[in-house]
Amino acid sequence: MSLIVTGAVGIDTIESPAGKADEVIGGSGIYFTAAASYFTTPRIVTAVGDDFPDEFVALFDHFKVDTAGLERRAGSKTFRWHGKYHDDNINERDTLGLELGILLEALPPVPESYADSEFVFLAVTAPENQLALLDKFPKRKLVVMDTIDLYIIQMRERLLDVISRVDGVIINDHEAKLLTGESNMVLAADWICDRGPAFAIIKKGEHGVIMKHRDGWAALPAYPADKVVDPTGAGDSFAGGFMGYLASVGDTSLTSLRRGLAYGTMIASFNIEDFSLGRMKTLTRDEIDRRYAAFAKMMELG
Amino acid sequence: MSLIVTGAVGIDTIESPAGKADEVIGGSGIYFTAAASYFTTPRIVTAVGDDFPDEFVALFDHFKVDTAGLERRAGSKTFRWHGKYHDDNINERDTLGLELGILLEALPPVPESYADSEFVFLAVTAPENQLALLDKFPKRKLVVMDTIDLYIIQMRERLLDVISRVDGVIINDHEAKLLTGESNMVLAADWICDRGPAFAIIKKGEHGVIMKHRDGWAALPAYPADKVVDPTGAGDSFAGGFMGYLASVGDTSLTSLRRGLAYGTMIASFNIEDFSLGRMKTLTRDEIDRRYAAFAKMMELG
Repeated sequence: MSLIVTGAVGIDTIESPAGKADEVIGGSGIYFTAAASYFTTPRIVTAVGDDFPDEFVALFDHFKVDTAGLERRAGSKTFRWHGKYHDDNINERDTLGLELGILLEALPPVPESYADSEFVFLAVTAPENQLALLDKFPKRKLVVMDTIDLYIIQMRERLLDVISRVDGVIINDHEAKLLTGESNMVLAADWICDRGPAFAIIKKGEHGVIMKHRDGWAALPAYPADKVVDPTGAGDSFAGGFMGYLASVGDTSLTSLRRGLAYGTMIASFNIEDFSLGRMKTLTRDEIDRRYAAFAKMMELG
Repeated sequence: MSLIVTGAVGIDTIESPAGKADEVIGGSGIYFTAAASYFTTPRIVTAVGDDFPDEFVALFDHFKVDTAGLERRAGSKTFRWHGKYHDDNINERDTLGLELGILLEALPPVPESYADSEFVFLAVTAPENQLALLDKFPKRKLVVMDTIDLYIIQMRERLLDVISRVDGVIINDHEAKLLTGESNMVLAADWICDRGPAFAIIKKGEHGVIMKHRDGWAALPAYPADKVVDPTGAGDSFAGGFMGYLASVGDTSLTSLRRGLAYGTMIASFNIEDFSLGRMKTLTRDEIDRRYAAFAKMMELG
């Protein structure tokens, strides 16, 4: 089935204990679609400025992303982010620079050809925008959303409107605590599901993921990674693998969701092995499947 | 096969957001043997003072622990600990009081009847003592050890001697970082195994456990617990369930170790539901098996 993501694409500068990457492609949109591309042909609705390099557009083609909804807006500036991961803990980072640019302007239009989209991922943007985008997809079968601290704090009521209208929420543990007031992630997932969604997925980074679903729970560790160069995009590539797998099987049962979580976990574990999309550029479906099999074995009790 | 633990038993006073428990039984020895008792008849070598209440001794009988090695020493004082878990994060605690008492005196003698012990767990004590105890069990088939910050910092060389002589190490993530200098737990486990043990188990509390083994990896999430009253003894009941299961099957293959980790995870998840041994006093093997099945299902990908 068709999969669409509405998320930002930008230009990142990243510093980590492993080195530095200057002006590389970033943003949830590229990580999500690249990850989803191993399972389906993802669609994207996003806007970049005329400073967005041709080689970055070519990367969408490399991953066979449907870019009918990628607007390159004349006179606008692409979103830029500069981050630095801590030397003593690569799971923490500081933002050194942020230029919202085009993200402060009007939303990109949704092409006619996307109106039949069935699997929809509302990546991080203002709740107002998520609501507006949601309504563009009348044939939606599964809608999943992400958000961040900023919107939880500043646009809480609007955000709760979005939560009440989606099938699933994916957020990280810090955001879940901020949103629900619960430091126990099981209770935080309960809280979210009480507000409408069929499932709540709480990402714990290096500690894996839990999901509360109407029909039961999922709990998976992270893949034990010995090489972490750049954690940027781990959450977005996780979401892309998850949604891409689901769209490819066209099923939203608890069993399929659990497999989706595992595929998302695998792709995120590759993504962090190099800066930006460096690792995904060469990653094959066969590598993903082999790591998936090894991962399943690590949890095998039977 | 026979299982023995050499660990402290004490009198705890515990404060948590859920309330307070005054002068209850505590120490690694009771949590470990109670957990192991669901699988085998564990032996214990430990010493308490003459202030140790009769009802605490009766608790060992309740769990059918072999107490030939439980010495009640006249004129000595039982080890006491007073801890308080944080209101905003129950996974952190402060020690408000500590009286080592009998732990500063001579080791308890190992009864003749224990000389044939095959599965040995060296719970937390000075590395010197762990080495002395190790040599008391010439028929040992599997020796696993635990340690804490204090000995990693103050008795490092002696501790490395113990590590080089055991089959497995169980420690938590903070201790693993302190011991190895690695903040990546995969590399920390590699570091430990490079020093001799066939496996290294790193406990991550609410985030589960990973194990590096000569033959491969295990990675398990924690059981998603919605009720945490008192985390005291979670690590010791985990170790007791793990070792108890292994002794009961008499096998140390990677598959058995993985199942042992899951049983340990289950018992720890029950243990934290009440103060001290409150929950384990009523816990049945059937409850453990039912939660184990539910847990396996949460990770099921097939």
